[in-house]
Amino acid sequence: MKKGYFITFEGGEACGKSTQIAKLKDFINSLPNKSDFVFIREPGGTPLAEEIRKLLLNYEDDKPLPMTELLLFCSARSEVVNKIIKPALENGKIVIADRFYDSTIAYQGMARKIMTPKQILDLTEIIIGDLKPNLTFYFNIEPKIAFQRKAKLDENLDRIEKEGLDFHENVKKGYDFISKLEKERFVTIDATQSIDDIFNFIIKTLKEKINIIE
Amino acid sequence: MKKGYFITFEGGEACGKSTQIAKLKDFINSLPNKSDFVFIREPGGTPLAEEIRKLLLNYEDDKPLPMTELLLFCSARSEVVNKIIKPALENGKIVIADRFYDSTIAYQGMARKIMTPKQILDLTEIIIGDLKPNLTFYFNIEPKIAFQRKAKLDENLDRIEKEGLDFHENVKKGYDFISKLEKERFVTIDATQSIDDIFNFIIKTLKEKINIIE
Repeated sequence: MKKGYFITFEGGEACGKSTQIAKLKDFINSLPNKSDFVFIREPGGTPLAEEIRKLLLNYEDDKPLPMTELLLFCSARSEVVNKIIKPALENGKIVIADRFYDSTIAYQGMARKIMTPKQILDLTEIIIGDLKPNLTFYFNIEPKIAFQRKAKLDENLDRIEKEGLDFHENVKKGYDFISKLEKERFVTIDATQSIDDIFNFIIKTLKEKINIIE
Repeated sequence: MKKGYFITFEGGEACGKSTQIAKLKDFINSLPNKSDFVFIREPGGTPLAEEIRKLLLNYEDDKPLPMTELLLFCSARSEVVNKIIKPALENGKIVIADRFYDSTIAYQGMARKIMTPKQILDLTEIIIGDLKPNLTFYFNIEPKIAFQRKAKLDENLDRIEKEGLDFHENVKKGYDFISKLEKERFVTIDATQSIDDIFNFIIKTLKEKINIIE
């Protein structure tokens, strides 16, 4: 049986992660072995997980409490891991995820302080077992700079993106924590670089780590 | 500050619990101090928790995995406990809940074996702190007898009610476990008795435990 490979993209708001994932999707769609790749985003990736995503990000009538938010993220993760990610990896696919449990440690752990990072890691292990990404691209940027960049764009922000600068500085502390704890899988990207420079670096890294062109 | 009182109703499928809660609601609505009482049902009790309830019980397109089910129940509980139950108890109200964490131990713990009862109790404590019911009416009945009773009714069953007899026998084991572990709050009712006998017993017990008629 071929062994799959699990890649995650992580970082705070306006770090440029989504732009890079979109570019990577285009690139991979041009490959002859494009069917070896599975893209997912968290929360989401299955019909039920997408319903949970709506409750998390766009349900304005009755906002989830911080603890509820954490549990809903975990609910959606339970679905996508067991229904999509694990079966894909068992079939030798390369799974590329926009966010995974590092986000929970950063946002719900360090920023909202709902559970300690240790409690979140323990709960994560109960939910998904010993599944860890093989490679994590962490888009490192000072929240202040990211916010200045974001302010130039005319986007609709979701509920979590609307949090203040303090919140996002704590998110960064969460990423710093987990990127030290599980450093063997982390590749940190200076997210102030140009879009093309970052993309070239990602492709170079993928070519080194996995044979992405058959 | 007046101290509230928290009563839960627990039991397996077709144990007669809902009938008794409906009768109790009618009775309390006739009391001069009816505004001292707050009824909730789990999962549910807030707009968001009711949305989660729909995903749990009536979302047939993409059924939740057992672990997801557990986490969604916990999400809904986090909402109703913190937004409804705790504030009501702090205001001296008597809260009456149709199901609480004993159901999680019975259904998701003993029946589905997703987490051990100990893990569920630990997670529950993280989510709701040290809140425990003051009084739990446990409707004790052999699943086989409950099912014969249910078969006579022409009801639409939800996804969980449709599980087989083995499942519901394990649910009963879960209730037996928690009713021994936290026995000081449990009042066990022989649910094969007549509706009127059970109701009279509940009212008698409530009169002894709390002064329900001012």
